[in-house]
Amino acid sequence: MAIGISLVRVDARDKVTGEAKYTADLEPRSCLVAKVVHSTIAFGEVKAIHLDEALAVPGVVKILTYFDVPDYQFPTPGHPWSVEKAHQDVADRRMLNRRVRFYGDDIAAIVAEDNVAADRAARLIRVEYEAYEPYVTVEQAMAPGARAVHDERPNNVLAHSGFQVGEMSYREALASEDGLVTLEKTYRTQTVQHCHLELPTSIAWQADGKINVITSTQIPHIVRRVIGQATGLPWGSIRVIKPYIGGGFGNKQDVLYEPLNAWLSLQVGGRPVKLEVSREETLASTRVRHAIDFHVSGAVRKDGSLVARRCLANSNQGGYASHGHAIVANAINCFKQLYRDEKALECQANTVYTNIAVGGAMRGYGIPQGDFAAECLADDLARAIGMDPLEFRLKNCMQEGYEDPHTHIKFYSYGLRAAMEKGRTLIRWDALREQYRDQTGPVRRGVGMAIFCYKTGVHPISLETASCRMVLHQDGSIQVQMGATEIGQGADTVFTQMASEATGISVGKVHVSTVQDTDVTPFDTGAYASRQTYVSVMAVKKTGALLKQKILEYAGYALRLPVENLDLRDDQIVDTLTGEILRPVADVALEAFYSLDRSQHITAEATSHCKINTFASGCCFAEVEVDIPLGKVKVLNIVNVHDSGSLINPKLAEAQVHGGMSMGLGYALSEELLFDGKGRPLNPNLLDYKLPTALDTPDLQAAFVEIPDPTGPYGNKALGEPPAIPVAPAVRNAVLHATGVAIDSLPLSPQKLVEAFAQAGLIED
Amino acid sequence: MAIGISLVRVDARDKVTGEAKYTADLEPRSCLVAKVVHSTIAFGEVKAIHLDEALAVPGVVKILTYFDVPDYQFPTPGHPWSVEKAHQDVADRRMLNRRVRFYGDDIAAIVAEDNVAADRAARLIRVEYEAYEPYVTVEQAMAPGARAVHDERPNNVLAHSGFQVGEMSYREALASEDGLVTLEKTYRTQTVQHCHLELPTSIAWQADGKINVITSTQIPHIVRRVIGQATGLPWGSIRVIKPYIGGGFGNKQDVLYEPLNAWLSLQVGGRPVKLEVSREETLASTRVRHAIDFHVSGAVRKDGSLVARRCLANSNQGGYASHGHAIVANAINCFKQLYRDEKALECQANTVYTNIAVGGAMRGYGIPQGDFAAECLADDLARAIGMDPLEFRLKNCMQEGYEDPHTHIKFYSYGLRAAMEKGRTLIRWDALREQYRDQTGPVRRGVGMAIFCYKTGVHPISLETASCRMVLHQDGSIQVQMGATEIGQGADTVFTQMASEATGISVGKVHVSTVQDTDVTPFDTGAYASRQTYVSVMAVKKTGALLKQKILEYAGYALRLPVENLDLRDDQIVDTLTGEILRPVADVALEAFYSLDRSQHITAEATSHCKINTFASGCCFAEVEVDIPLGKVKVLNIVNVHDSGSLINPKLAEAQVHGGMSMGLGYALSEELLFDGKGRPLNPNLLDYKLPTALDTPDLQAAFVEIPDPTGPYGNKALGEPPAIPVAPAVRNAVLHATGVAIDSLPLSPQKLVEAFAQAGLIED
Repeated sequence: MAIGISLVRVDARDKVTGEAKYTADLEPRSCLVAKVVHSTIAFGEVKAIHLDEALAVPGVVKILTYFDVPDYQFPTPGHPWSVEKAHQDVADRRMLNRRVRFYGDDIAAIVAEDNVAADRAARLIRVEYEAYEPYVTVEQAMAPGARAVHDERPNNVLAHSGFQVGEMSYREALASEDGLVTLEKTYRTQTVQHCHLELPTSIAWQADGKINVITSTQIPHIVRRVIGQATGLPWGSIRVIKPYIGGGFGNKQDVLYEPLNAWLSLQVGGRPVKLEVSREETLASTRVRHAIDFHVSGAVRKDGSLVARRCLANSNQGGYASHGHAIVANAINCFKQLYRDEKALECQANTVYTNIAVGGAMRGYGIPQGDFAAECLADDLARAIGMDPLEFRLKNCMQEGYEDPHTHIKFYSYGLRAAMEKGRTLIRWDALREQYRDQTGPVRRGVGMAIFCYKTGVHPISLETASCRMVLHQDGSIQVQMGATEIGQGADTVFTQMASEATGISVGKVHVSTVQDTDVTPFDTGAYASRQTYVSVMAVKKTGALLKQKILEYAGYALRLPVENLDLRDDQIVDTLTGEILRPVADVALEAFYSLDRSQHITAEATSHCKINTFASGCCFAEVEVDIPLGKVKVLNIVNVHDSGSLINPKLAEAQVHGGMSMGLGYALSEELLFDGKGRPLNPNLLDYKLPTALDTPDLQAAFVEIPDPTGPYGNKALGEPPAIPVAPAVRNAVLHATGVAIDSLPLSPQKLVEAFAQAGLIED
Repeated sequence: MAIGISLVRVDARDKVTGEAKYTADLEPRSCLVAKVVHSTIAFGEVKAIHLDEALAVPGVVKILTYFDVPDYQFPTPGHPWSVEKAHQDVADRRMLNRRVRFYGDDIAAIVAEDNVAADRAARLIRVEYEAYEPYVTVEQAMAPGARAVHDERPNNVLAHSGFQVGEMSYREALASEDGLVTLEKTYRTQTVQHCHLELPTSIAWQADGKINVITSTQIPHIVRRVIGQATGLPWGSIRVIKPYIGGGFGNKQDVLYEPLNAWLSLQVGGRPVKLEVSREETLASTRVRHAIDFHVSGAVRKDGSLVARRCLANSNQGGYASHGHAIVANAINCFKQLYRDEKALECQANTVYTNIAVGGAMRGYGIPQGDFAAECLADDLARAIGMDPLEFRLKNCMQEGYEDPHTHIKFYSYGLRAAMEKGRTLIRWDALREQYRDQTGPVRRGVGMAIFCYKTGVHPISLETASCRMVLHQDGSIQVQMGATEIGQGADTVFTQMASEATGISVGKVHVSTVQDTDVTPFDTGAYASRQTYVSVMAVKKTGALLKQKILEYAGYALRLPVENLDLRDDQIVDTLTGEILRPVADVALEAFYSLDRSQHITAEATSHCKINTFASGCCFAEVEVDIPLGKVKVLNIVNVHDSGSLINPKLAEAQVHGGMSMGLGYALSEELLFDGKGRPLNPNLLDYKLPTALDTPDLQAAFVEIPDPTGPYGNKALGEPPAIPVAPAVRNAVLHATGVAIDSLPLSPQKLVEAFAQAGLIED
């Protein structure tokens, strides 16, 4: 059995020895460097751009501006393409832009022999702008008479959507019975950035009749398509190679600079060009997690049963559409999918163009924002009627068998309540709620919790398709090629385990090709939406069965035995009737290669078109200590409990949860990308942007309720993104428990807490 | 139609711009270098090796000797493996050897930070030998009491083989009738080297759980296997990558230093190590074309009909077996396959271990040697009875429909006579034979010719198996992956044409992956035996048909039309009944990728196990001018006429012939690797080894008789090696015509000619 074991990461050795190659390690000889010139205003038009001085810098090879790029608008997000125009992503930018829409927009690019020349040239380029008043908030951008950020959206609303469930409207529900306790609140999430370890980097060059691009991406096959759309080159003439990457978290699920780099190389005769985006540029000019304001109302009976809720979510998209409306549309699903039996639930969402950094995909895809709002409201409603917030959730939470009325995604396996009970025990919920009931003094403690649910992949909102290829080597080992990508999460390791399980070849003899090369690697849309272990592994399972069948057919031929009586187990061909070991698969492989009678190179390839989806769920429990005068929150204990189906590799699953929890703690307590009134980022660097370090991180506890999911290829379902979701509301709710003060925006920074505690009278003037 | 057009080489742009990457271009950062320490005696035992001084050189990382290599003997030749021990190649060497068997044998290897350190260390290693008397000639090695070069072969004869055809023995044939004219002669061919442009180079490093080796080889999949055999590593844990290579001509059909380099990398913690063999080492220590002595007799009637021949060929193998006996066994086939209707033909061959450089595969695989002997004898017999040598061949040469009685290889198409007639016209044979009949004076002219035949691939002597994979891209273009290798001969270009023909996708939309990577590239044994355009393309044809069928099935599904009525022509799906163009294949591809209904990534892969073989044939006609006092031969006109079936790409076919003819001229006139009595190579460098340059080369004329071969995938058969075969005997026979002097050994060097002319009385003392 290869499933459920904690196989050591297959890339462990290479990563600790430094032999794992990342994009920058693959820089060829005589590589040129590119540097992007960014706008220094947030909204306006470039009226003139003066390059003479910059072009005179020794070592500058070429400078190209928005005048020079092909006139193709293209979409950047990492979604499967659609042949139907209505379902295609918004194509609202060129590789370089004359109208600038955020501080840091791309207006020119320098190609030089080295970074020194490129930097000098960048400083010497003079740009004349016609500047417009930038919109930093959704309210500014939606105000009557506001100037359109994109002419195609005169009111700056990129999209609006909504849904209503229950038997009546929210207003009717409030009027339908007496004694309801109601709340109206606004919860706000902030702009944060992914802060992946490896900067976005690509190397492009022309060879073999193609434009070749090595890039740090989550989605090599999508990058190929978008380069084609942005440059007008035939898609098949583009080759994208993805080596090891140092994290992405969704930022590398957008096609950021690969098209520009490919095109720059073509402008300098196909010479190799490296385009490495600095940390400062990454924070200011790539993608961020959207700031979303949730205007919510809720009504609850005194017995704790939920009656009605309403939510209007406004998402601050920044200057370009990127993933468009999908993220806030996903965010408001939290309200629908977490609780049940309401008379009314009304949700609305707007995605609004503004002039700050562009929002894109980030671990959780809107759910961390929506979950914060939904789970603050849950605690606030429970508190309003004096009910234990865990009891409130146990009473109202979504039940086994739930099916989303719109997407028809189901809880095919359901562990939410079990997860809550497990968390309750692990954090000692009942004892601590009691113990921390009536505190005084400057330092107080509390416990809080939050729940979440999360789908697995993108079906049926979008296409889920994956391919896998397996090749039998001469020694009975196999090579597995997948378009699905290892991005640090351990994908190659679990693919190894699953390919072993599917074929009967032992894990030590399964080699997963870690590098994707769109010329040779089977198609897969890539690493996002917690999809790969579910969707991509369906292709592994299908291909493994096919390969095994082909091996058994050859073995049957070689052994002159009926294939029906043969199986492949632990690298051996066995007789299923007697259990007898007949021949090592290595011998069968060698014969298949070299038989003078029937030489056959056994390989298998299959596409899996996944047309199902299942909810994962779980919760976070946090115990905190709040230093009220300092506004400082210390997390004493924190546990995530996940309902993610069967675990393929428990240690990797735990590590995945730890990473997500740490990300959630930064989101809860310290991270925020700030902008001034002109849309200028105030802290686009890792000194001023407060990413938590190892020293800031408490011991993290990961627990699981392992209920096999019948739809998962090996009983598994989403685990990649979920761990980051419930942490921030759990911490916020713990602070509420400790202090009685409801902080309604993220992060829970000392400044904000001190102000709130002072207002609440906990700090005297 | 993509066949028969002179498509510009698909790698032309990359090769002229320098963007084509060869092994040395792919050197990673911080790469160590390896240097092999060679023996300075030709035969003996290393008694002691002193490394202290060498190890003290700064920059030396490690020095390893024969003590440190695993005790595996392994075979080096590029043959398909056999699961039957009797058919496996001779495994007679280790990576480093204590018993040295030729001057330049490998006894130690230095790994250093740079070449300077490695070279300094090499000079400081002191080796103590017990030296034995080396054997330079076959006669010395076969003499009674000679010491065994390899203990496994006490008499130094690696192998002996022979065959007899005809109704009686040679002796009986001579006695069977009166009036026969007989001859006894010895023809000798010399040792030559391939002199490929790019030196043998490899780079090895450990990563991804594998030992990775980039190498300049003709046979990447075989290199993988041999590294496994030499090191004891599982074959699947070895990854071999073949980029562009600068020629091989058979020298890179031996696995020379890849196992050693892989093993060296593993001894230095998996760090990358480059092992580049210098030109001097290449000449002395890699592989050479065997010197073979042919002791022949022949009997002919006065009417010109051939009665009987006998041949004993002794092949000077050098210190290791490499391709073993296969080459001289092939050489004597010339006698059998070129002429017919003899009463007796007796052929014997010995392969003898000596202590000179190791013989291996070189363009023609024994046939250039055998053809020299057979075609000298043909001319000498014709001359003995006063018959025109062309008439002699037309009278006696092998006829249409010939089937080899032992291998059952057939002339499935036959153009030998037509080729001779075409050559006769092109060279103006009859006029020149007449014109040059009675010459006097120091400068004389003559015309000569020679014929040859050559099989296509290695079936049934060995396995012929090839695989191909095709992947449909989103834009309707395809990627073709093959284990068959581009080695400069234009393989990728003709594969492109053939894949286009097989699929209906236009040549501009067919991308052949030029780099082989044994982890991802389908299996194929590689570039040798003029096999790829025949054997490997059978896999292209099969795979192309499969891919086309899958595309048409998807198109039928998408268009709701029966697949039987659809075809793919010029990138369009067409209705075969009406000829109507229904949809571009690009649209079908896009729908197949992104259909929400049925997403399918269309690929196809197939193995072709080739169980057929056909003879190609042809001839060379040369007109020469001989300066008798200077011993100088000037080639005035030379034409090769080839019966190679249909031409896939006429321009590339012509270029192939030109290259072979130039190689044949070097073989004929100037090239020879010389050894002194101690087995030391006297001229292992390109100053003293006389490779012809462009200035030495006359205009070369290539002509064809295009008779489609019914067994060839597109009517084609062997063309890779044949052009080199008939040139040397044609030139030798032209000199005979010009001067009346039969030179019976190669090369026709000035020294040798002056001596022969003096002996013949053409030069006065």
